[in-house]
Amino acid sequence: MGESRLDKQFKFCREIDKEKMIGRQTYLTGGERKENDAEHAWHMALMTVLLSEYAEEEIDVLKTVTMLLIHDIVEIDAGDTYAYDEEAKKTQRQRELAAADRIFGILPEDQGRKLRDLWEEFEEAETAEAKFAHTMDNLQPMMLNDLTDGKSWVKKGVRLGQILKRNEHTAEGSEILWDYAQENFLIPNVEKGRIKP
Amino acid sequence: MGESRLDKQFKFCREIDKEKMIGRQTYLTGGERKENDAEHAWHMALMTVLLSEYAEEEIDVLKTVTMLLIHDIVEIDAGDTYAYDEEAKKTQRQRELAAADRIFGILPEDQGRKLRDLWEEFEEAETAEAKFAHTMDNLQPMMLNDLTDGKSWVKKGVRLGQILKRNEHTAEGSEILWDYAQENFLIPNVEKGRIKP
Repeated sequence: MGESRLDKQFKFCREIDKEKMIGRQTYLTGGERKENDAEHAWHMALMTVLLSEYAEEEIDVLKTVTMLLIHDIVEIDAGDTYAYDEEAKKTQRQRELAAADRIFGILPEDQGRKLRDLWEEFEEAETAEAKFAHTMDNLQPMMLNDLTDGKSWVKKGVRLGQILKRNEHTAEGSEILWDYAQENFLIPNVEKGRIKP
Repeated sequence: MGESRLDKQFKFCREIDKEKMIGRQTYLTGGERKENDAEHAWHMALMTVLLSEYAEEEIDVLKTVTMLLIHDIVEIDAGDTYAYDEEAKKTQRQRELAAADRIFGILPEDQGRKLRDLWEEFEEAETAEAKFAHTMDNLQPMMLNDLTDGKSWVKKGVRLGQILKRNEHTAEGSEILWDYAQENFLIPNVEKGRIKP
């Protein structure tokens, strides 16, 4: 009387509903509230479909989309670690590994391993798909920060140097997109004093 | 000095951020707030990756995922039309067509047409991908309604007959999933009085 394959799949589908409660630091259009992980993943998945033509190396779009759809699921247990919170980042890996064990472990073994491997591939950031996914993961909040008059940058007092360090590999996913982002999302906000020089 | 291809693509990527503000009638885990369109699309996209093995006919997973990622974008202008609001449903098609013209029209022509065609394909519900996408679109809120003790069904006084009518084609996308949903999400909630017989 164990769980069936479908029981496990639906158990996982119900569990991940919690990702909609995991808040991020990025403000949405209008600046009234911040984004959550599920919204962020949806946005990047669709951006990948539209922008994959600029990938540095040819990518498997479905693989990249799936990677982005699942890449924050571990935060259901581990929480969102803000990109510029150096203390939290020290324990991030350990918290996320335990979360991956539990959450991907809900699925039938073949699917759980597949998603877990995809998450690890994202974390390692070495394949073409993982590099492009990281480019999306860095550009999407930058685009939204620009769209909301740099609200999140201003509130956190973020410096250009921090942003550039965080984006030291962004061009590896797409040089064209990284150039566009610097020109359209970063430089104008430095000039307007929303990002500290 | 017209907009470049990338300008148009990013303009669209910024515009669709508004989908995160379009509320639905389904409550999320814990029942404290309702879902929005972006969260709903993310959830179904990932469910499609996991559950496509049960599709009645073999489906192109990336196509189905993309269809689900974009299927509610027209609601940025047209608003969400509740499944059991017969008045609002009368003007739904007209409102959504105008929205599709405007929003998909932001993209470069080739991509705008591709997404528009995909949206129309979803609306027509005739291809294997569109049928499976509708199965997801019907099962996902049912799963969440069950997860939240039928809160949305109870508040709206929904009757089993209404649900079955809305799901008259759900088995066309996947008979196995529709059977599972009836057994696990509907019948128990009729027995508990959360869905009116």
